[in-house]
Amino acid sequence: MSVLATADQLAAALAARGEARSGATSPTSGLAPGLVQANLISVPADWAYDVLLFAQRNPRPCPVLEVLDAGSWESRLAAGSDLRTDIPGYRLWRDGVLAAEVTDATAAWEEHPDLVSFLIGCSFTFEAGLVEAGIPIRHQEAGRNVPMYRTSRACAPAGRLRGDMVVSMRAIPADRVADAVQISGRYPAVHGAPVAIGDPASLGIARLDAPEFGDAPVIEPGDVPVFWACGVTPQAAIMESRPPFALTHAPGSMFVTDVPDANYLV
Amino acid sequence: MSVLATADQLAAALAARGEARSGATSPTSGLAPGLVQANLISVPADWAYDVLLFAQRNPRPCPVLEVLDAGSWESRLAAGSDLRTDIPGYRLWRDGVLAAEVTDATAAWEEHPDLVSFLIGCSFTFEAGLVEAGIPIRHQEAGRNVPMYRTSRACAPAGRLRGDMVVSMRAIPADRVADAVQISGRYPAVHGAPVAIGDPASLGIARLDAPEFGDAPVIEPGDVPVFWACGVTPQAAIMESRPPFALTHAPGSMFVTDVPDANYLV
Repeated sequence: MSVLATADQLAAALAARGEARSGATSPTSGLAPGLVQANLISVPADWAYDVLLFAQRNPRPCPVLEVLDAGSWESRLAAGSDLRTDIPGYRLWRDGVLAAEVTDATAAWEEHPDLVSFLIGCSFTFEAGLVEAGIPIRHQEAGRNVPMYRTSRACAPAGRLRGDMVVSMRAIPADRVADAVQISGRYPAVHGAPVAIGDPASLGIARLDAPEFGDAPVIEPGDVPVFWACGVTPQAAIMESRPPFALTHAPGSMFVTDVPDANYLV
Repeated sequence: MSVLATADQLAAALAARGEARSGATSPTSGLAPGLVQANLISVPADWAYDVLLFAQRNPRPCPVLEVLDAGSWESRLAAGSDLRTDIPGYRLWRDGVLAAEVTDATAAWEEHPDLVSFLIGCSFTFEAGLVEAGIPIRHQEAGRNVPMYRTSRACAPAGRLRGDMVVSMRAIPADRVADAVQISGRYPAVHGAPVAIGDPASLGIARLDAPEFGDAPVIEPGDVPVFWACGVTPQAAIMESRPPFALTHAPGSMFVTDVPDANYLV
């Protein structure tokens, strides 16, 4: 679909990016409702093919929304944007190890002027659809981050990149699980339908109460755990594969685009 | 979805690839019904990133089903397959110009041992869904190739690759057009919903009776022209962009995979 944002939405997105550019560090959840937010991964040009191929081979966890040209920082998903400054927080990785957290990545870009940036879809897009349908999102209601787990399911390797799939978990009331499947399934370009439902062991997850990333889960009586492929997967693979340098967004601090969620609806 | 082929389907696919390997040159339309057939484009490794990026930026005309590693010819979409021999006909391109048609690409691979092969989705997949729904496919009924047109709509360029989108046209009875949109829209990974309906001029197409590729259209009274993004687009872009060498399938001679169409259904 090619649905345009409203003037109000565009103003909200511009404000969100502008605040980040001015140094604000607050998370972006809830900003510019109805517009897509994206994960950022920037790597030296020499690594770009491996990252793009890894994403092509693992589209569920790695839905690529945009690949910028080497050295470019203005996203086509937001006119006038600047990926060096318009995200509230960044992480710098050296040889796969977290080296620094910064609120402005301009210096990192001066150090690596050939960075290729990947904007990757984020579960906020289908979560908005679930909320609209009245499906409770437990971690949102509790003000927590979504719980994420490393699975025993290996991603298809690509060049120097390899790693296991990471999933996010949402505990959904049993009588809404089918709705959650159908709604998220209508966003195949943004993680799509769940990869497993009801049995953590099927993904090699031993302890549901101890996620590797994010916060501990909130599970109400009658809830069923539902697992979606997670956008942390490519980041985890990149870290495992130890490129000399990588720049990512900080968790919860996403890139707010000008593109309505509806563009990714089938 | 991860739907497995039946034993009969797998036997039919193996037979189709085996016949091509033995030198058969007949087109693959109608072989191994229910299984995906794919377009082939192989380029020297130096060009692979540009091709993959072009596809990422133009997913409607360029739905990538698989990218093989440089120098590999066994597709993951068909165990034991050999892309050098298992397609009934190949075209060799030098500097963007058709240089030869062959039934065995082994010599081309010896000349260019670093080829990276792209398997790209084909409209056979959604056409099967249209036929199942009782929607007439005029060119099939007339035993012709589908008419294809170069449009005035530029693809997003990527590296050295650029070109205009090519579309295929199917004339559909007015009271089945909505069905055709909905059915093809459920295959977003294989061209998806139409890009235009009813007005050739909206795509810069001046003469519906004179397609640039394929055969002249068959249009019955009461039919409406419906235009889909076409897998010839990346091939046209590669030819326009003149890589030193490229290998593609010959028109109508596709790679028959072991993967059911249903895997690309949303």
